[in-house]
Amino acid sequence: MNRTEAGRAERLAATAMRLVSAPSVQHNLDPLGDAAGVARSTMSEDVRLLDRLARQLDLGRVETISGKGGGVRYIPTASPDAIAATLSAFAAQLRDPARVLPGGFLYLTDLVCSPDWSSRLGVIFATAMRPARPTHVLTVETRGIPLALMTARALGLPLLIARRDARVAEGPALSITYLSATTGRVQNMSLPRRSLRSGARVLVIDDFMRGGGTAKGLIDLVTEFEADLAGVGVAIATAHPAEKKAGRFLPLLVMHRVDEGSRWVEVEPNAGLAWSGMHRTP
Amino acid sequence: MNRTEAGRAERLAATAMRLVSAPSVQHNLDPLGDAAGVARSTMSEDVRLLDRLARQLDLGRVETISGKGGGVRYIPTASPDAIAATLSAFAAQLRDPARVLPGGFLYLTDLVCSPDWSSRLGVIFATAMRPARPTHVLTVETRGIPLALMTARALGLPLLIARRDARVAEGPALSITYLSATTGRVQNMSLPRRSLRSGARVLVIDDFMRGGGTAKGLIDLVTEFEADLAGVGVAIATAHPAEKKAGRFLPLLVMHRVDEGSRWVEVEPNAGLAWSGMHRTP
Repeated sequence: MNRTEAGRAERLAATAMRLVSAPSVQHNLDPLGDAAGVARSTMSEDVRLLDRLARQLDLGRVETISGKGGGVRYIPTASPDAIAATLSAFAAQLRDPARVLPGGFLYLTDLVCSPDWSSRLGVIFATAMRPARPTHVLTVETRGIPLALMTARALGLPLLIARRDARVAEGPALSITYLSATTGRVQNMSLPRRSLRSGARVLVIDDFMRGGGTAKGLIDLVTEFEADLAGVGVAIATAHPAEKKAGRFLPLLVMHRVDEGSRWVEVEPNAGLAWSGMHRTP
Repeated sequence: MNRTEAGRAERLAATAMRLVSAPSVQHNLDPLGDAAGVARSTMSEDVRLLDRLARQLDLGRVETISGKGGGVRYIPTASPDAIAATLSAFAAQLRDPARVLPGGFLYLTDLVCSPDWSSRLGVIFATAMRPARPTHVLTVETRGIPLALMTARALGLPLLIARRDARVAEGPALSITYLSATTGRVQNMSLPRRSLRSGARVLVIDDFMRGGGTAKGLIDLVTEFEADLAGVGVAIATAHPAEKKAGRFLPLLVMHRVDEGSRWVEVEPNAGLAWSGMHRTP
Protein backbone atom coordinates (compact mmCIF):
# COMPACT_ATOMS: atom_id res chain seq x y z
CA MET A 1 0.00 0.00 0.00
CA ASN A 2 1.41 3.39 -0.86
CA ARG A 3 1.50 6.39 1.38
CA THR A 4 -1.59 8.13 -0.02
CA GLU A 5 -3.76 5.07 0.48
CA ALA A 6 -2.48 4.50 4.01
CA GLY A 7 -3.22 8.18 4.60
CA ARG A 8 -6.78 7.76 3.39
CA ALA A 9 -7.44 4.84 5.73
CA GLU A 10 -6.13 6.81 8.69
CA ARG A 11 -8.04 9.93 7.72
CA LEU A 12 -11.31 7.99 7.47
CA ALA A 13 -10.81 6.26 10.80
CA ALA A 14 -9.84 9.51 12.51
CA THR A 15 -12.86 11.34 11.09
CA ALA A 16 -15.09 8.44 12.16
CA MET A 17 -13.75 8.66 15.72
CA ARG A 18 -14.18 12.42 15.97
CA LEU A 19 -17.73 12.37 14.61
CA VAL A 20 -19.01 9.41 16.65
CA SER A 21 -17.49 10.69 19.90
CA ALA A 22 -19.66 13.85 19.67
CA PRO A 23 -23.07 12.89 18.25
CA SER A 24 -25.19 15.58 16.57
CA VAL A 25 -22.38 18.09 16.99
CA GLN A 26 -21.48 20.00 13.84
CA HIS A 27 -17.83 19.69 12.82
CA ASN A 28 -16.49 22.23 10.41
CA LEU A 29 -15.59 20.50 7.16
CA ASP A 30 -12.56 22.66 6.47
CA PRO A 31 -10.62 22.06 9.68
CA LEU A 32 -11.41 18.34 9.40
CA GLY A 33 -9.98 18.41 5.90
CA ASP A 34 -7.15 20.81 6.63
CA ALA A 35 -5.82 18.70 9.46
CA ALA A 36 -5.42 15.83 7.04
CA GLY A 37 -4.24 18.09 4.22
CA VAL A 38 -6.89 17.08 1.69
CA ALA A 39 -9.24 18.90 -0.61
CA ARG A 40 -12.88 19.57 0.23
CA SER A 41 -14.04 17.30 -2.62
CA THR A 42 -12.07 14.41 -1.09
CA MET A 43 -13.64 15.12 2.30
CA SER A 44 -17.08 14.96 0.69
CA GLU A 45 -16.25 11.53 -0.66
CA ASP A 46 -15.12 10.49 2.82
CA VAL A 47 -18.38 11.73 4.32
CA ARG A 48 -20.39 9.68 1.82
CA LEU A 49 -18.39 6.57 2.69
CA LEU A 50 -18.74 7.13 6.44
CA ASP A 51 -22.48 7.67 5.98
CA ARG A 52 -22.77 4.34 4.17
CA LEU A 53 -20.76 2.57 6.90
CA ALA A 54 -22.83 4.14 9.72
CA ARG A 55 -26.02 2.92 8.04
CA GLN A 56 -24.59 -0.57 7.43
CA LEU A 57 -23.55 -0.85 11.07
CA ASP A 58 -26.95 0.47 12.18
CA LEU A 59 -25.30 3.27 14.13
CA GLY A 60 -27.08 6.12 12.33
CA ARG A 61 -25.94 8.37 9.53
CA VAL A 62 -23.34 10.99 8.67
CA GLU A 63 -24.63 14.10 6.97
CA THR A 64 -23.29 17.26 5.42
CA ILE A 65 -24.77 20.58 6.52
CA SER A 66 -24.75 23.19 3.80
CA GLY A 67 -24.59 26.92 4.42
CA LYS A 68 -21.80 29.18 5.57
CA GLY A 69 -18.78 27.31 6.80
CA GLY A 70 -20.46 24.04 5.95
CA GLY A 71 -20.08 21.14 8.26
CA VAL A 72 -20.56 17.49 8.90
CA ARG A 73 -22.16 15.62 11.76
CA TYR A 74 -22.94 12.15 12.94
CA ILE A 75 -26.62 11.53 13.72
CA PRO A 76 -27.22 8.44 15.85
CA THR A 77 -30.43 6.70 14.79
CA ALA A 78 -31.76 3.18 15.09
CA SER A 79 -33.35 1.18 12.25
CA PRO A 80 -36.74 -0.50 12.77
CA ASP A 81 -34.96 -3.85 13.14
CA ALA A 82 -32.52 -2.51 15.73
CA ILE A 83 -35.39 -0.86 17.63
CA ALA A 84 -37.33 -4.12 17.71
CA ALA A 85 -34.26 -6.05 18.91
CA THR A 86 -33.39 -3.50 21.63
CA LEU A 87 -36.95 -3.26 22.96
CA SER A 88 -37.36 -7.02 22.92
CA ALA A 89 -34.14 -7.44 24.92
CA PHE A 90 -35.27 -4.71 27.33
CA ALA A 91 -38.66 -6.41 27.81
CA ALA A 92 -36.88 -9.69 28.58
CA GLN A 93 -34.94 -7.92 31.35
CA LEU A 94 -38.16 -6.47 32.76
CA ARG A 95 -39.77 -9.93 32.93
CA ASP A 96 -37.17 -11.18 35.44
CA PRO A 97 -39.32 -12.39 38.40
CA ALA A 98 -36.72 -10.99 40.82
CA ARG A 99 -37.81 -7.48 39.74
CA VAL A 100 -41.29 -7.83 41.28
CA LEU A 101 -41.43 -5.76 44.47
CA PRO A 102 -43.94 -5.86 47.33
CA GLY A 103 -47.09 -4.03 46.23
CA GLY A 104 -46.77 -5.20 42.63
CA PHE A 105 -44.19 -2.58 41.73
CA LEU A 106 -41.39 -3.40 39.32
CA TYR A 107 -37.74 -2.61 40.12
CA LEU A 108 -36.52 -0.60 37.11
CA THR A 109 -33.92 1.71 38.54
CA ASP A 110 -30.81 -0.27 37.60
CA LEU A 111 -32.00 -0.58 33.99
CA VAL A 112 -33.20 2.95 33.26
CA CYS A 113 -30.13 4.39 35.03
CA SER A 114 -27.55 2.20 33.29
CA PRO A 115 -25.32 4.01 30.78
CA ASP A 116 -25.90 1.23 28.26
CA TRP A 117 -29.71 1.00 28.36
CA SER A 118 -30.30 4.72 28.80
CA SER A 119 -28.09 5.35 25.80
CA ARG A 120 -29.82 2.73 23.61
CA LEU A 121 -33.32 3.89 24.56
CA GLY A 122 -32.22 7.52 24.18
CA VAL A 123 -31.21 6.85 20.57
CA ILE A 124 -34.67 5.33 19.96
CA PHE A 125 -36.39 8.41 21.41
CA ALA A 126 -34.10 10.60 19.27
CA THR A 127 -34.94 8.59 16.14
CA ALA A 128 -38.69 8.93 16.74
CA MET A 129 -38.68 12.56 17.90
CA ARG A 130 -36.16 14.27 15.61
CA PRO A 131 -38.82 15.02 12.92
CA ALA A 132 -40.69 17.14 15.52
CA ARG A 133 -37.61 19.42 15.64
CA PRO A 134 -37.31 19.81 19.42
CA THR A 135 -34.97 22.47 20.82
CA HIS A 136 -34.86 21.21 24.44
CA VAL A 137 -35.37 17.94 26.32
CA LEU A 138 -37.28 18.18 29.62
CA THR A 139 -37.72 15.65 32.42
CA VAL A 140 -38.48 15.74 36.14
CA GLU A 141 -36.21 14.38 38.85
CA THR A 142 -35.15 11.61 39.37
CA ARG A 143 -35.35 8.34 37.57
CA GLY A 144 -36.01 9.76 34.10
CA ILE A 145 -32.83 11.85 34.08
CA PRO A 146 -30.43 9.30 32.53
CA LEU A 147 -32.87 8.54 29.69
CA ALA A 148 -33.54 12.23 29.10
CA LEU A 149 -29.82 13.06 29.14
CA MET A 150 -29.00 10.34 26.61
CA THR A 151 -31.90 11.47 24.41
CA ALA A 152 -30.60 15.05 24.60
CA ARG A 153 -27.10 13.83 23.77
CA ALA A 154 -28.32 11.91 20.70
CA LEU A 155 -30.27 14.97 19.53
CA GLY A 156 -27.49 17.46 20.41
CA LEU A 157 -29.88 19.45 22.66
CA PRO A 158 -29.75 20.92 26.17
CA LEU A 159 -31.40 19.02 29.04
CA LEU A 160 -33.79 20.66 31.50
CA ILE A 161 -34.65 19.00 34.81
CA ALA A 162 -37.79 20.10 36.66
CA ARG A 163 -37.42 19.95 40.45
CA ARG A 164 -40.01 18.79 42.96
CA ASP A 165 -39.23 21.83 45.09
CA ALA A 166 -37.94 25.23 43.99
CA ARG A 167 -34.33 25.53 45.12
CA VAL A 168 -32.86 28.80 46.20
CA ALA A 169 -29.63 27.89 44.44
CA GLU A 170 -31.34 27.99 41.04
CA GLY A 171 -32.83 31.49 41.25
CA PRO A 172 -36.35 32.58 40.30
CA ALA A 173 -38.48 29.65 39.11
CA LEU A 174 -41.87 28.91 37.61
CA SER A 175 -43.89 26.31 39.52
CA ILE A 176 -47.00 24.27 38.86
CA THR A 177 -48.88 21.72 40.97
CA TYR A 178 -50.12 18.39 39.67
CA LEU A 179 -51.78 15.23 40.92
CA SER A 180 -49.54 12.17 40.83
CA ALA A 181 -51.56 8.96 40.38
CA THR A 182 -48.59 6.89 41.60
CA THR A 183 -48.35 8.65 44.96
CA GLY A 184 -51.98 9.88 45.05
CA ARG A 185 -50.72 13.28 46.22
CA VAL A 186 -50.71 16.79 44.87
CA GLN A 187 -47.10 17.54 44.02
CA ASN A 188 -45.10 20.56 43.02
CA MET A 189 -42.80 20.93 40.02
CA SER A 190 -40.61 23.88 39.12
CA LEU A 191 -38.10 25.02 36.56
CA PRO A 192 -35.74 28.02 36.75
CA ARG A 193 -37.13 31.05 34.94
CA ARG A 194 -33.96 31.43 32.92
CA SER A 195 -33.90 27.86 31.61
CA LEU A 196 -36.51 28.22 28.85
CA ARG A 197 -37.63 31.02 26.52
CA SER A 198 -40.97 31.37 24.76
CA GLY A 199 -40.87 29.80 21.32
CA ALA A 200 -38.76 26.83 22.44
CA ARG A 201 -39.95 23.38 21.31
CA VAL A 202 -39.78 21.00 24.23
CA LEU A 203 -39.53 17.22 24.15
CA VAL A 204 -40.74 15.65 27.42
CA ILE A 205 -39.03 12.37 28.41
CA ASP A 206 -39.74 10.19 31.45
CA ASP A 207 -39.11 6.61 32.46
CA PHE A 208 -42.59 5.52 33.54
CA MET A 209 -46.21 6.55 33.01
CA ARG A 210 -49.23 5.28 34.88
CA GLY A 211 -51.96 7.93 34.98
CA GLY A 212 -49.98 10.52 33.04
CA GLY A 213 -50.20 13.11 35.84
CA THR A 214 -46.48 13.76 35.95
CA ALA A 215 -46.24 14.14 32.17
CA LYS A 216 -49.26 16.46 32.23
CA GLY A 217 -47.48 18.51 34.90
CA LEU A 218 -44.44 18.80 32.63
CA ILE A 219 -46.67 19.78 29.70
CA ASP A 220 -48.34 22.45 31.88
CA LEU A 221 -44.89 23.73 32.78
CA VAL A 222 -44.01 24.00 29.08
CA THR A 223 -47.23 25.96 28.49
CA GLU A 224 -46.46 28.23 31.46
CA PHE A 225 -43.19 29.17 29.75
CA GLU A 226 -45.11 29.92 26.52
CA ALA A 227 -43.04 27.24 24.83
CA ASP A 228 -44.34 24.56 22.45
CA LEU A 229 -44.57 20.84 23.11
CA ALA A 230 -42.58 18.79 20.57
CA GLY A 231 -43.73 15.44 21.99
CA VAL A 232 -43.86 13.18 25.03
CA GLY A 233 -41.85 9.95 25.25
CA VAL A 234 -41.87 7.41 28.10
CA ALA A 235 -39.83 4.24 28.38
CA ILE A 236 -42.63 2.19 29.96
CA ALA A 237 -46.35 2.98 30.08
CA THR A 238 -48.92 0.85 31.88
CA ALA A 239 -51.78 -0.45 29.72
CA HIS A 240 -54.25 0.60 32.46
CA PRO A 241 -55.67 3.14 32.77
CA ALA A 242 -55.90 3.34 28.96
CA GLU A 243 -56.96 6.96 29.27
CA LYS A 244 -53.95 9.00 30.40
CA LYS A 245 -53.90 12.66 31.39
CA ALA A 246 -50.91 13.35 29.16
CA GLY A 247 -52.71 13.31 25.81
CA ARG A 248 -50.65 11.89 22.96
CA PHE A 249 -47.40 10.14 23.92
CA LEU A 250 -44.91 7.58 22.67
CA PRO A 251 -44.26 4.58 24.94
CA LEU A 252 -41.32 2.29 24.12
CA LEU A 253 -42.88 -0.58 26.08
CA VAL A 254 -46.38 -1.26 27.38
CA MET A 255 -46.80 -3.00 30.72
CA HIS A 256 -50.04 -4.97 31.03
CA ARG A 257 -49.71 -6.56 34.40
CA VAL A 258 -47.36 -7.28 37.32
CA ASP A 259 -48.62 -10.17 39.43
CA GLU A 260 -47.04 -10.06 42.85
CA GLY A 261 -48.06 -13.63 43.79
CA SER A 262 -46.74 -15.47 40.74
CA ARG A 263 -44.09 -12.81 40.04
CA TRP A 264 -45.34 -12.69 36.50
CA VAL A 265 -44.62 -9.55 34.47
CA GLU A 266 -46.57 -8.99 31.27
CA VAL A 267 -44.77 -6.35 29.21
CA GLU A 268 -44.54 -5.92 25.45
CA PRO A 269 -42.27 -3.79 23.28
CA ASN A 270 -43.93 -1.11 21.20
CA ALA A 271 -41.59 -2.11 18.36
CA GLY A 272 -43.50 -0.18 15.68
CA LEU A 273 -43.27 2.97 17.84
CA ALA A 274 -47.03 3.54 17.63
CA TRP A 275 -48.25 6.63 19.46
CA SER A 276 -50.74 6.22 22.30
CA GLY A 277 -53.52 8.46 23.58
CA MET A 278 -55.39 11.23 21.92
CA HIS A 279 -54.69 14.87 21.33
CA ARG A 280 -56.13 16.55 24.38
CA THR A 281 -59.11 18.77 23.77
CA PRO A 282 -58.19 22.24 24.93
CA MET B 1 -6.51 2.04 -5.12
CA ASN B 2 -7.19 -1.66 -5.33
CA ARG B 3 -10.00 -3.50 -3.65
CA THR B 4 -8.02 -4.77 -0.66
CA GLU B 5 -6.83 -1.30 0.23
CA ALA B 6 -10.30 0.21 -0.10
CA GLY B 7 -11.50 -2.67 2.09
CA ARG B 8 -8.90 -1.84 4.72
CA ALA B 9 -9.96 1.82 4.90
CA GLU B 10 -13.60 0.82 5.32
CA ARG B 11 -12.78 -1.84 7.89
CA LEU B 12 -10.76 0.62 9.98
CA ALA B 13 -13.47 3.30 9.84
CA ALA B 14 -16.21 0.78 10.70
CA THR B 15 -14.23 -0.62 13.64
CA ALA B 16 -13.54 2.95 14.83
CA MET B 17 -17.27 3.75 14.74
CA ARG B 18 -18.28 0.61 16.61
CA LEU B 19 -15.66 1.04 19.33
CA VAL B 20 -16.19 4.77 19.94
CA SER B 21 -20.00 4.47 20.01
CA ALA B 22 -19.75 2.13 23.03
CA PRO B 23 -16.90 3.32 25.27
CA SER B 24 -15.29 0.85 27.67
CA VAL B 25 -17.42 -1.96 26.26
CA GLN B 26 -15.47 -5.06 25.29
CA HIS B 27 -15.93 -6.10 21.67
CA ASN B 28 -15.00 -9.61 20.75
CA LEU B 29 -12.01 -9.50 18.42
CA ASP B 30 -13.14 -12.46 16.30
CA PRO B 31 -16.59 -11.22 15.28
CA LEU B 32 -15.09 -7.80 14.51
CA GLY B 33 -12.58 -9.52 12.27
CA ASP B 34 -14.95 -12.12 10.87
CA ALA B 35 -17.43 -9.51 9.72
CA ALA B 36 -14.71 -7.96 7.62
CA GLY B 37 -13.27 -11.32 6.60
CA VAL B 38 -9.75 -10.71 7.84
CA ALA B 39 -7.27 -12.60 9.95
CA ARG B 40 -6.73 -11.96 13.63
CA SER B 41 -3.20 -10.70 13.02
CA THR B 42 -4.57 -8.08 10.62
CA MET B 43 -7.13 -7.04 13.23
CA SER B 44 -4.30 -6.63 15.75
CA GLU B 45 -2.55 -4.29 13.34
CA ASP B 46 -5.81 -2.35 12.96
CA VAL B 47 -6.17 -2.06 16.72
CA ARG B 48 -2.63 -0.66 17.03
CA LEU B 49 -3.39 1.93 14.33
CA LEU B 50 -6.72 2.92 15.95
CA ASP B 51 -4.96 3.22 19.29
CA ARG B 52 -2.41 5.58 17.79
CA LEU B 53 -5.14 7.67 16.14
CA ALA B 54 -7.23 7.87 19.35
CA ARG B 55 -4.16 9.12 21.22
CA GLN B 56 -3.29 11.64 18.47
CA LEU B 57 -6.86 12.98 18.48
CA ASP B 58 -6.81 13.10 22.30
CA LEU B 59 -9.91 10.92 22.47
CA GLY B 60 -8.35 8.17 24.57
CA ARG B 61 -6.91 4.82 23.62
CA VAL B 62 -7.86 1.50 22.07
CA GLU B 63 -6.65 -1.58 23.89
CA THR B 64 -6.62 -5.31 23.46
CA ILE B 65 -7.85 -7.46 26.32
CA SER B 66 -6.13 -10.81 26.53
CA GLY B 67 -7.69 -13.93 27.97
CA LYS B 68 -10.39 -16.25 26.69
CA GLY B 69 -12.19 -14.91 23.65
CA GLY B 70 -9.93 -11.90 23.62
CA GLY B 71 -11.38 -8.53 22.88
CA VAL B 72 -10.82 -4.93 22.12
CA ARG B 73 -12.25 -1.77 23.66
CA TYR B 74 -12.09 1.96 23.38
CA ILE B 75 -11.16 3.75 26.60
CA PRO B 76 -12.00 7.45 26.59
CA THR B 77 -9.34 9.42 28.44
CA ALA B 78 -8.17 13.01 28.38
CA SER B 79 -4.54 14.13 28.22
CA PRO B 80 -3.20 16.69 30.71
CA ASP B 81 -3.38 19.36 27.97
CA ALA B 82 -6.97 18.50 27.07
CA ILE B 83 -7.94 18.49 30.77
CA ALA B 84 -6.39 21.93 31.26
CA ALA B 85 -8.17 23.30 28.17
CA THR B 86 -11.56 21.83 29.14
CA LEU B 87 -11.40 23.04 32.74
CA SER B 88 -10.22 26.48 31.67
CA ALA B 89 -13.16 26.76 29.24
CA PHE B 90 -15.53 25.55 31.96
CA ALA B 91 -14.17 28.11 34.43
CA ALA B 92 -14.70 30.86 31.84
CA GLN B 93 -18.38 29.83 31.59
CA LEU B 94 -18.71 29.91 35.37
CA ARG B 95 -17.33 33.46 35.54
CA ASP B 96 -20.25 34.84 33.50
CA PRO B 97 -21.69 37.60 35.77
CA ALA B 98 -25.23 36.60 34.70
CA ARG B 99 -24.73 33.36 36.67
CA VAL B 100 -24.61 35.14 40.04
CA LEU B 101 -27.90 34.55 41.89
CA PRO B 102 -29.40 36.38 44.86
CA GLY B 103 -27.65 35.15 48.02
CA GLY B 104 -24.32 34.74 46.25
CA PHE B 105 -25.21 31.40 44.72
CA LEU B 106 -24.00 30.50 41.26
CA TYR B 107 -26.36 29.15 38.58
CA LEU B 108 -24.71 25.90 37.41
CA THR B 109 -27.61 23.72 36.40
CA ASP B 110 -27.50 24.30 32.65
CA LEU B 111 -23.76 23.53 32.55
CA VAL B 112 -23.56 20.43 34.75
CA CYS B 113 -26.70 19.02 33.08
CA SER B 114 -25.62 19.64 29.49
CA PRO B 115 -24.78 16.50 27.49
CA ASP B 116 -21.60 18.17 26.23
CA TRP B 117 -20.11 19.41 29.53
CA SER B 118 -21.25 16.41 31.57
CA SER B 119 -19.63 14.16 29.01
CA ARG B 120 -16.34 16.11 28.92
CA LEU B 121 -16.10 16.34 32.72
CA GLY B 122 -17.14 12.69 32.98
CA VAL B 123 -14.17 11.66 30.84
CA ILE B 124 -11.87 13.68 33.12
CA PHE B 125 -13.27 11.92 36.23
CA ALA B 126 -12.87 8.59 34.43
CA THR B 127 -9.25 9.41 33.51
CA ALA B 128 -8.39 10.30 37.11
CA MET B 129 -10.35 7.51 38.81
CA ARG B 130 -9.76 4.49 36.57
CA PRO B 131 -6.55 3.50 38.43
CA ALA B 132 -8.64 3.06 41.62
CA ARG B 133 -10.55 0.29 39.77
CA PRO B 134 -14.11 1.29 40.76
CA THR B 135 -16.95 -1.17 40.11
CA HIS B 136 -19.85 1.31 40.57
CA VAL B 137 -20.45 5.06 40.33
CA LEU B 138 -22.67 6.58 43.04
CA THR B 139 -24.31 10.00 43.26
CA VAL B 140 -27.31 11.51 45.03
CA GLU B 141 -30.25 13.14 43.28
CA THR B 142 -30.42 15.54 41.46
CA ARG B 143 -27.90 17.82 39.88
CA GLY B 144 -24.94 15.42 40.02
CA ILE B 145 -26.73 12.72 38.00
CA PRO B 146 -25.66 13.78 34.48
CA LEU B 147 -21.99 14.02 35.54
CA ALA B 148 -22.16 10.69 37.35
CA LEU B 149 -23.88 9.01 34.40
CA MET B 150 -21.28 10.25 31.92
CA THR B 151 -18.48 9.18 34.29
CA ALA B 152 -20.08 5.74 34.55
CA ARG B 153 -20.43 5.60 30.75
CA ALA B 154 -16.75 6.46 30.23
CA LEU B 155 -15.73 3.80 32.76
CA GLY B 156 -18.25 1.21 31.51
CA LEU B 157 -19.81 0.89 35.01
CA PRO B 158 -23.32 0.88 36.46
CA LEU B 159 -24.69 4.07 38.01
CA LEU B 160 -26.35 4.17 41.43
CA ILE B 161 -28.50 7.13 42.51
CA ALA B 162 -29.17 7.67 46.22
CA ARG B 163 -32.62 9.14 46.91
CA ARG B 164 -33.50 11.80 49.46
CA ASP B 165 -36.47 9.70 50.55
CA ALA B 166 -36.91 5.93 50.37
CA ARG B 167 -39.42 5.14 47.65
CA VAL B 168 -41.80 2.25 47.92
CA ALA B 169 -41.27 1.58 44.20
CA GLU B 170 -37.63 0.65 44.77
CA GLY B 171 -38.13 -2.00 47.47
CA PRO B 172 -36.18 -2.40 50.71
CA ALA B 173 -33.54 0.30 51.12
CA LEU B 174 -30.67 1.26 53.42
CA SER B 175 -30.89 4.81 54.75
CA ILE B 176 -28.54 7.20 56.54
CA THR B 177 -28.98 10.73 57.82
CA TYR B 178 -26.49 13.52 57.29
CA LEU B 179 -26.12 17.24 57.90
CA SER B 180 -26.12 19.33 54.76
CA ALA B 181 -24.10 22.53 55.18
CA THR B 182 -25.81 24.07 52.15
CA THR B 183 -29.32 23.72 53.56
CA GLY B 184 -28.29 23.62 57.24
CA ARG B 185 -30.69 20.71 57.76
CA VAL B 186 -30.43 17.07 58.69
CA GLN B 187 -31.29 15.14 55.55
CA ASN B 188 -31.99 11.57 54.64
CA MET B 189 -30.37 9.51 51.90
CA SER B 190 -31.22 5.98 50.84
CA LEU B 191 -30.23 3.34 48.32
CA PRO B 192 -32.11 0.13 47.43
CA ARG B 193 -30.75 -2.88 49.29
CA ARG B 194 -30.32 -4.82 46.07
CA SER B 195 -28.26 -2.16 44.28
CA LEU B 196 -24.90 -2.83 45.94
CA ARG B 197 -23.12 -5.89 47.31
CA SER B 198 -20.36 -6.01 49.87
CA GLY B 199 -16.95 -5.95 48.21
CA ALA B 200 -17.99 -3.44 45.56
CA ARG B 201 -15.64 -0.49 44.97
CA VAL B 202 -17.66 2.69 44.77
CA LEU B 203 -16.70 5.95 43.10
CA VAL B 204 -18.70 8.89 44.50
CA ILE B 205 -19.40 11.74 42.05
CA ASP B 206 -21.24 15.01 42.70
CA ASP B 207 -21.46 18.41 41.07
CA PHE B 208 -20.75 20.67 44.04
CA MET B 209 -19.11 20.50 47.47
CA ARG B 210 -19.24 23.14 50.18
CA GLY B 211 -18.94 21.51 53.61
CA GLY B 212 -18.68 17.97 52.29
CA GLY B 213 -21.72 16.78 54.27
CA THR B 214 -23.47 15.27 51.27
CA ALA B 215 -20.32 13.45 50.11
CA LYS B 216 -19.79 12.20 53.66
CA GLY B 217 -23.38 10.93 53.63
CA LEU B 218 -22.66 9.01 50.43
CA ILE B 219 -19.44 7.61 51.93
CA ASP B 220 -21.39 6.51 55.03
CA LEU B 221 -23.89 4.80 52.73
CA VAL B 222 -21.03 2.95 51.01
CA THR B 223 -19.76 1.82 54.43
CA GLU B 224 -23.27 0.74 55.45
CA PHE B 225 -23.29 -1.61 52.43
CA GLU B 226 -19.89 -2.99 53.50
CA ALA B 227 -18.52 -1.78 50.17
CA ASP B 228 -15.20 0.03 49.61
CA LEU B 229 -14.72 3.64 48.60
CA ALA B 230 -12.75 4.00 45.36
CA GLY B 231 -12.69 7.80 45.50
CA VAL B 232 -14.72 11.00 45.63
CA GLY B 233 -14.88 13.44 42.70
CA VAL B 234 -16.72 16.76 42.56
CA ALA B 235 -16.96 19.17 39.65
CA ILE B 236 -16.71 22.30 41.80
CA ALA B 237 -15.55 22.62 45.41
CA THR B 238 -15.57 25.85 47.38
CA ALA B 239 -12.20 26.93 48.79
CA HIS B 240 -13.91 27.66 52.14
CA PRO B 241 -14.30 25.90 54.43
CA ALA B 242 -10.90 24.35 53.64
CA GLU B 243 -11.69 21.53 56.04
CA LYS B 244 -14.40 19.35 54.46
CA LYS B 245 -16.22 16.48 56.09
CA ALA B 246 -15.63 14.23 53.08
CA GLY B 247 -11.96 13.47 53.69
CA ARG B 248 -9.90 13.12 50.53
CA PHE B 249 -11.56 14.20 47.29
CA LEU B 250 -10.78 15.35 43.76
CA PRO B 251 -12.26 18.71 42.70
CA LEU B 252 -12.11 19.67 39.02
CA LEU B 253 -12.48 23.36 39.87
CA VAL B 254 -12.05 25.37 43.05
CA MET B 255 -14.38 28.28 43.73
CA HIS B 256 -12.85 30.99 45.92
CA ARG B 257 -15.56 33.61 45.97
CA VAL B 258 -18.87 34.74 44.47
CA ASP B 259 -19.46 38.44 45.08
CA GLU B 260 -23.13 39.23 44.71
CA GLY B 261 -22.65 43.02 44.53
CA SER B 262 -20.01 43.15 41.80
CA ARG B 263 -21.13 39.83 40.27
CA TRP B 264 -17.53 38.72 40.40
CA VAL B 265 -16.85 34.97 40.39
CA GLU B 266 -13.42 33.75 41.41
CA VAL B 267 -12.98 30.18 40.24
CA GLU B 268 -9.87 28.30 39.14
CA PRO B 269 -9.41 25.01 37.33
CA ASN B 270 -7.60 22.26 39.20
CA ALA B 271 -5.80 21.48 35.97
CA GLY B 272 -3.19 19.25 37.61
CA LEU B 273 -5.98 17.21 39.22
CA ALA B 274 -4.44 17.58 42.68
CA TRP B 275 -6.40 15.85 45.44
CA SER B 276 -7.80 17.93 48.30
CA GLY B 277 -8.44 17.15 51.93
CA MET B 278 -6.96 14.57 54.20
CA HIS B 279 -7.60 10.93 54.81
CA ARG B 280 -10.18 10.95 57.57
CA THR B 281 -9.09 9.48 60.85
CA PRO B 282 -11.44 6.65 61.67
